[in-house]
Amino acid sequence: MGRSDGNEETITAALVVIGEEILSGRTPDANIAYIAAHLGKIGIALREVRIVPDLEREIVTAVNALRGAYTYVFTTGGIGPTHDDITTDAIAKAFGVRVDIDPRAVDAMRKGYEDAELTPTRLRMARIPEGAELIDNPISKAPGFMLGNVIVMAGIPRIMQVMLDSVSPRLRTGRKMLSRSVRVDVPEGDAAPGLSELQAAHPSVQIGSYPFFEKGRLGTYVVLRCVDAEALAAAHAALWRLIENEGFNAEDSEG
Amino acid sequence: MGRSDGNEETITAALVVIGEEILSGRTPDANIAYIAAHLGKIGIALREVRIVPDLEREIVTAVNALRGAYTYVFTTGGIGPTHDDITTDAIAKAFGVRVDIDPRAVDAMRKGYEDAELTPTRLRMARIPEGAELIDNPISKAPGFMLGNVIVMAGIPRIMQVMLDSVSPRLRTGRKMLSRSVRVDVPEGDAAPGLSELQAAHPSVQIGSYPFFEKGRLGTYVVLRCVDAEALAAAHAALWRLIENEGFNAEDSEG
Repeated sequence: MGRSDGNEETITAALVVIGEEILSGRTPDANIAYIAAHLGKIGIALREVRIVPDLEREIVTAVNALRGAYTYVFTTGGIGPTHDDITTDAIAKAFGVRVDIDPRAVDAMRKGYEDAELTPTRLRMARIPEGAELIDNPISKAPGFMLGNVIVMAGIPRIMQVMLDSVSPRLRTGRKMLSRSVRVDVPEGDAAPGLSELQAAHPSVQIGSYPFFEKGRLGTYVVLRCVDAEALAAAHAALWRLIENEGFNAEDSEG
Repeated sequence: MGRSDGNEETITAALVVIGEEILSGRTPDANIAYIAAHLGKIGIALREVRIVPDLEREIVTAVNALRGAYTYVFTTGGIGPTHDDITTDAIAKAFGVRVDIDPRAVDAMRKGYEDAELTPTRLRMARIPEGAELIDNPISKAPGFMLGNVIVMAGIPRIMQVMLDSVSPRLRTGRKMLSRSVRVDVPEGDAAPGLSELQAAHPSVQIGSYPFFEKGRLGTYVVLRCVDAEALAAAHAALWRLIENEGFNAEDSEG
């Protein structure tokens, strides 16, 4: 395991999930975990998620609060053809720019629709804020877009995922977060004092502790995270010395 | 289906999920959908969710931004015994009150732990901000708490769920949101013009449109939501007239 080299900059992101249906409890979110894992893999740290309703004021407020605070803001949902799809207009409003039918977006949609199918309703999906770059959607053709540092994607998971793949090569990325996980078969309360000392001795490594109940067993997953492979390995070795000194049962874990 | 009577007030809530492990992509959130559905059932409208890392500044900022904007703020996570459990202190800081070992919380924990097990580390879970009411935890005994309009619960789903049951009878509730859902077997783009007119004709009913791909079929779930049963029934009847006029295949749906 070599030292991670290259870009030392931390690249951060926030995600705005535009989803009345999630807030109402009708539909469980299906995108947050995927986006979190994808961004982690490419070296972007997801720092905050907000789920907001399909209301222009709420979307504008969230996007404007977040786009100055993080390198990138991703949004999902609300770019379809129906009356409740208001994300495009809300993003344009947040940036103070106009929205119009974009000939590039119409061209993209022609790959999926006959001309007769390109009704005024469907052409709502070709409305793109001024100054935005399109994000390719190989599945259903209507594109997402990137305006400034805000990346606007569909809410349907399969379409969101291809848009995320399309846009990822354009994004700045930083050092990838590395992690090690150890399952310790004692309750958190027993593991806590040692973990607290471990954290103090390894300040560059983020040490998380997650209790679990599995098959009637109470235990603790300890997750070590750091962009530096050597610091991570040192903390991992120290965790194992702690486990052996205490006589805990434990095992390196995938998750 | 009778008219919902009683309290006309709208009771709102926000949820703050304190979860580094969710932002890192390690663990999918398992609480948002449950809380959204539970609150909807008891007559509290969930209006916003934020997922923030285990950092005091982020928790304080989110809680203080939300507790003035909504009737209630719920939090999940970060109230265990380990060094990364900082929610209790962050909430106290947000309110500017002290935190101390609370004798009521110690009494509650004695039901689950022998005296010898109540180590200083475990007693971290009995630290409660000044002025808070406890929330019973029949499973693992360490309580949650309610301070002002902020309800602080565990992150482990089973424990969060019993805490939510414990606290719910104390909360003000409003009219319950009622809903009807219809599966329409045409793409959103075909359903959109009619839905737009339907929304204009039934402004008190919130009309949501959710595209789906199921077994190779493209279609649209139309969800009607309203606190008033008569207005909901009128919009539902109008939706069915629209479906019949257009000759769409459709079916009333559970979801």
